[in-house]
Amino acid sequence: MSLRYAVVGTGAVGGYYGARLQQGGAEVHFLLHRDYDHVLKSGLVVQSIAGDFVLPQVQAHCTTATMPPVDVVVIGLKTTQNALLPNLLPPLLGPKTAILTLQNGFGIEAELAAWVGDRPILGGLCVICANKVGPGAIRHLDYGNLLLGQHRPDHQPAGISPLLEQIVQDFAAGQVTVDKVEDLRLARWRKLLWNIPFNGLSVVMAATTDEMMADPNIRQLAEWLMADVLEAAQHDGDTLSPGQNRHLPPALVAQMLAHTEQMTPYRTSMKIDFDEGRPLEVEAIYGNALRTAQAAGATVPRIEMLYHWLKAIDRRRGKG
Amino acid sequence: MSLRYAVVGTGAVGGYYGARLQQGGAEVHFLLHRDYDHVLKSGLVVQSIAGDFVLPQVQAHCTTATMPPVDVVVIGLKTTQNALLPNLLPPLLGPKTAILTLQNGFGIEAELAAWVGDRPILGGLCVICANKVGPGAIRHLDYGNLLLGQHRPDHQPAGISPLLEQIVQDFAAGQVTVDKVEDLRLARWRKLLWNIPFNGLSVVMAATTDEMMADPNIRQLAEWLMADVLEAAQHDGDTLSPGQNRHLPPALVAQMLAHTEQMTPYRTSMKIDFDEGRPLEVEAIYGNALRTAQAAGATVPRIEMLYHWLKAIDRRRGKG
Repeated sequence: MSLRYAVVGTGAVGGYYGARLQQGGAEVHFLLHRDYDHVLKSGLVVQSIAGDFVLPQVQAHCTTATMPPVDVVVIGLKTTQNALLPNLLPPLLGPKTAILTLQNGFGIEAELAAWVGDRPILGGLCVICANKVGPGAIRHLDYGNLLLGQHRPDHQPAGISPLLEQIVQDFAAGQVTVDKVEDLRLARWRKLLWNIPFNGLSVVMAATTDEMMADPNIRQLAEWLMADVLEAAQHDGDTLSPGQNRHLPPALVAQMLAHTEQMTPYRTSMKIDFDEGRPLEVEAIYGNALRTAQAAGATVPRIEMLYHWLKAIDRRRGKG
Repeated sequence: MSLRYAVVGTGAVGGYYGARLQQGGAEVHFLLHRDYDHVLKSGLVVQSIAGDFVLPQVQAHCTTATMPPVDVVVIGLKTTQNALLPNLLPPLLGPKTAILTLQNGFGIEAELAAWVGDRPILGGLCVICANKVGPGAIRHLDYGNLLLGQHRPDHQPAGISPLLEQIVQDFAAGQVTVDKVEDLRLARWRKLLWNIPFNGLSVVMAATTDEMMADPNIRQLAEWLMADVLEAAQHDGDTLSPGQNRHLPPALVAQMLAHTEQMTPYRTSMKIDFDEGRPLEVEAIYGNALRTAQAAGATVPRIEMLYHWLKAIDRRRGKG
C-alpha cells in the first residue's frame, strides 16, 4: 500500500517526480498555478529518455485548501519561494505528515522545521536534467535518480527509517532509482561540491559547462571553490561522534571536473533562473553553506567572494 | 634649462602630462598614431578644470624613427601595448636617457628594464581624471598631480636622485604638482589599494564608483580585496633593511572607502577599456601584483579570484 502525496510546486522537478509516484500507483495531489486549467483538463505529459508517458488524469489543485492531509508533502518550489510555505502547508499537515524537500542547497530542512514542528523531514537530492517545455509538459533529458536521506535537528546522521524505506518503494514502483543516504548533510555537501562552483560561475561568466571547462581560468576558479567545499564539509563533521566524519575525498575534485568535461553541454539551474529573470537561489546554495562553514570554523574565502558577487548581481538586476 | 622629452603614447594621460611639460618650457616630442595629421596641423587642446590651454604647435611624429634621442622617454601607452616598446624605443635612447612610465599597475619598471638596460627608470603615478574627447583634444576633469619615484632593480627604496629633482622642476614649470616618493614600490601598493578593488569590480559588476559604494555586497568585496593588498605590501617589505617596511596603515581602507563614496561618480580606467573593446590591463594590475605577493609568501585569495575572473572575462570577449 503506497503513501498519499502532495506535490507543492509542479515545475520540472516536482512534476517529474510526482508523475513517477502516480505512475507507480501512489495517490498524488498536485498544486499548480499557471498550468492549473490545462492540467485539470489534459493531465501531465512526460517526454522522457526512459520512455514518454502521459497521465491523462491527475488530481490538480490551484490551492492547497482543496487538498486532503497527506502522508508526504513533496516540496518542488524554488527555495526563493519558501516564504509561501507557511500559508501553503497547513491544510496538508496531519499529525504524522512527513515533508520531503526536493530543493537545492543547504540547510533547507532546518528552515522547514520552523513551519512543521517535529514532523519528519527528508531531503531528496535530485540528480536529473529536466525542464518544463509547456503547460503540464516536462522534458526529462538525462539521469533521473534521487538520493534520499532524513534530517535530524542535531545534524547527526539519521540512518534509514521505515518511513524512508516506504518512500523508496513508492518511487521504485514508478521506475525511479533511489539511493538511501544515512548522513543527509554529507550528501548535501557532496552535491554542493558541484553546485557551488558551477551554478555561480555559470551566472557570473555567462557560460555553459563545456565553456567553463574549456577556459583555464574558470576551471581554476572551480577547483578553488571545490577546495573550499571540502574544507567546509570536513569542519561541519567535527561535531560528529568519534569515528564519524564528513570528509569528502579530495580525489572527488578531479573526478568531478573530468566528469563535467565529458557531460553533454549543460546550462545550470541557476543560469536558467538568471536567463528567465527569476531570483537566484543564492541564500539556499551559498548563504546557508557559508554560514554553516563559518560557524564550524572553516576558512572559505572563495565561497565568501562568490556569495557576495551573486548577491550583488541579484540585487543589481532587481531581484535581490 | 629643462630636459628634452619624448612622449610615447599621446592618449589622455601621455597627452596631458606631455602638454604640461611643453607648457612649462620643455622640448617635447609626441608620438601619435590616429591623431598624427590633426595634431601636426592644429596642435593639442587641453580643456582643464585648472584653465583651458592650447599648444598650437607641437613636435608631432608618427614614428619614433624621426625623433631625436631624448633625456626622458615618457611612456603613455596602455601596458597591454608594451610589446611594441622594443621596436619603438631604440631611436630615443641615448646612453643616459631615462624612462618614465606613467602606466598603471605593478612591476612595470622591471619589465621595461629588459629593454633599456641599466638606464634610469622612474615611475610616475598619475592621480588624474582625464579622457580624450577628440583628435588632439584632452579633457582634464579632476586632480592632476603626480607621484614620482625611481626604480631600483633590487626593489629597495631609491631615494630622491638629482634626475628626479630635475623632472619635478620641469613638471612644476608646467603647473603640475609632483610628490617625490622615496619608495616607489610602496607608492605602487598604495595605488593598488584602490585600483585592485575598484578597477576589477567595476568591470565584473558593470558599475561606477557610486554604484559600487551603494551596494553592501560590492563594498564588502572591495574591503576584502583591500585587505589582501595590505597583506601583499607588508610581505613585499620583508626583504627591506631593518627598520624599513611597506606597511600600509589598515585605517587607509576605511579612509579610501569613505573618499570613494564622496567622489564624483566615476567610471574606472578598466571599465572604460572594457566598454571601448580594448584589452584589460589584467596582467599589469593583477597578475604582477599577485605573483609578487605569492613570491613574498602572502596569502591573497581574493586577488587571486579576481585575477582569474578578469582573465576569463577578457578571454571570453576575445581579448585575453
